[in-house]
Amino acid sequence: MAVGTLVLLRHGESVWNAENLFTGWVDVPLSAKGEGEAGRGGELLRDAGLLPDVVHTSLLRRAIATANLALDGADRHWIPVRRDWRLNERHYGALQGKNKKQTLETYGEEQFMLWRRSYDTPPPPIEPGSEFSQDSDPRYAGVDAPLTECLKDVVARLLPYWDSSIVPDLRTGRTVLVAAHGNSLRALVKHLDGVSEEAIAGLNIPTGIPLRYDLDDDLRPTNPGGTYLDPDAATDAIKAVANQGR
Amino acid sequence: MAVGTLVLLRHGESVWNAENLFTGWVDVPLSAKGEGEAGRGGELLRDAGLLPDVVHTSLLRRAIATANLALDGADRHWIPVRRDWRLNERHYGALQGKNKKQTLETYGEEQFMLWRRSYDTPPPPIEPGSEFSQDSDPRYAGVDAPLTECLKDVVARLLPYWDSSIVPDLRTGRTVLVAAHGNSLRALVKHLDGVSEEAIAGLNIPTGIPLRYDLDDDLRPTNPGGTYLDPDAATDAIKAVANQGR
Repeated sequence: MAVGTLVLLRHGESVWNAENLFTGWVDVPLSAKGEGEAGRGGELLRDAGLLPDVVHTSLLRRAIATANLALDGADRHWIPVRRDWRLNERHYGALQGKNKKQTLETYGEEQFMLWRRSYDTPPPPIEPGSEFSQDSDPRYAGVDAPLTECLKDVVARLLPYWDSSIVPDLRTGRTVLVAAHGNSLRALVKHLDGVSEEAIAGLNIPTGIPLRYDLDDDLRPTNPGGTYLDPDAATDAIKAVANQGR
Repeated sequence: MAVGTLVLLRHGESVWNAENLFTGWVDVPLSAKGEGEAGRGGELLRDAGLLPDVVHTSLLRRAIATANLALDGADRHWIPVRRDWRLNERHYGALQGKNKKQTLETYGEEQFMLWRRSYDTPPPPIEPGSEFSQDSDPRYAGVDAPLTECLKDVVARLLPYWDSSIVPDLRTGRTVLVAAHGNSLRALVKHLDGVSEEAIAGLNIPTGIPLRYDLDDDLRPTNPGGTYLDPDAATDAIKAVANQGR
């Protein structure tokens, strides 16, 4: 059986995106704008006839709500659902809840970009029991949850889920939607496209625009870099993401 | 391990409930009032500390949206999700899309109540290919979908799912939320409480009010009839349901 189609969808704007705060594992809702982006993502899926057979999400409500709204818009609200913490956003450690612009001003451009974009430098770990820590959150019971992560850490915890849960769905020929986050999707794209540790720093994924990957039998993209369902909007949005914190 | 707790939740008002139409398998959305009921259901779960570990829904968006809204309100949006057509509303056959009051006037009280409340008299089957038929709906591909159902038919198709999917979740000690429909929940309550074929005709389940069942090792309720999380609202709502179509 031919390998199915993979569709990546980054959640729409959250209320903390709108306030320019580092979010990570803090479970903030979508903004009204983000809800609209998610619905638009569903329309793009529907109009392209790219109808998911199964959806994978993180455990965070901004990705879950994005999946729910997009699938409802594409009339695919009834498909099987799988959720896993391994699709969560990068844990931003002690930066969670902090303003991006203030962080940039406090620590300077070099340190700020190192935390945001270096492959293997995590921010300082979050203090257990502090306001934006997840250590008493029941959804992570039994999980060896991180206190901070760099992108390398995200790749390491994402790939076991890719292999054990997403790949089997693709191997049955299904169209698989993955509704997740900027950095968990960057980690997945790095793996799929074989992006180098240096090049991944400059790769941004826009919110709310489905990104289709067609895969060969070895799960290598036959359309390297994937195909955005709305390429013009994607180009504009990628520029906007790159300028966050400015 | 002790058997977990079962929580039944009937979806809030749909746009066709509001218009007093027979709905069945027609996939209509919640009304704004129904969305509010679902959110209130989530608040009741949260305030009671009755937090679902897993949710089962039908394949219809009014139950799916009710689950999503209630779970979001209880901060349990991240739990595992299972969906199955066997939790769908009773298929209302040729009555789907018809006004309840007009149907009552056209066919008379006796026939109307026979279709609505008799245990084993289904309405006439729906015409394949007609406006409110589901025969080309991809979500039922591979399913021997009914063209009409009486409550007895619903019991017969529901119980295999109860045994194969809901009971195993209960056996692991989990709190299991079932978000479904008036008749699929009546079928389940009939089974749980051993309600007779005659008595089930008079049993109505209100919308949006979680109904808790505590079960012994033989899956018999230790609180027969279950316990509504808001008993006063349930009593009022049961009366309102009984008067539908009048």
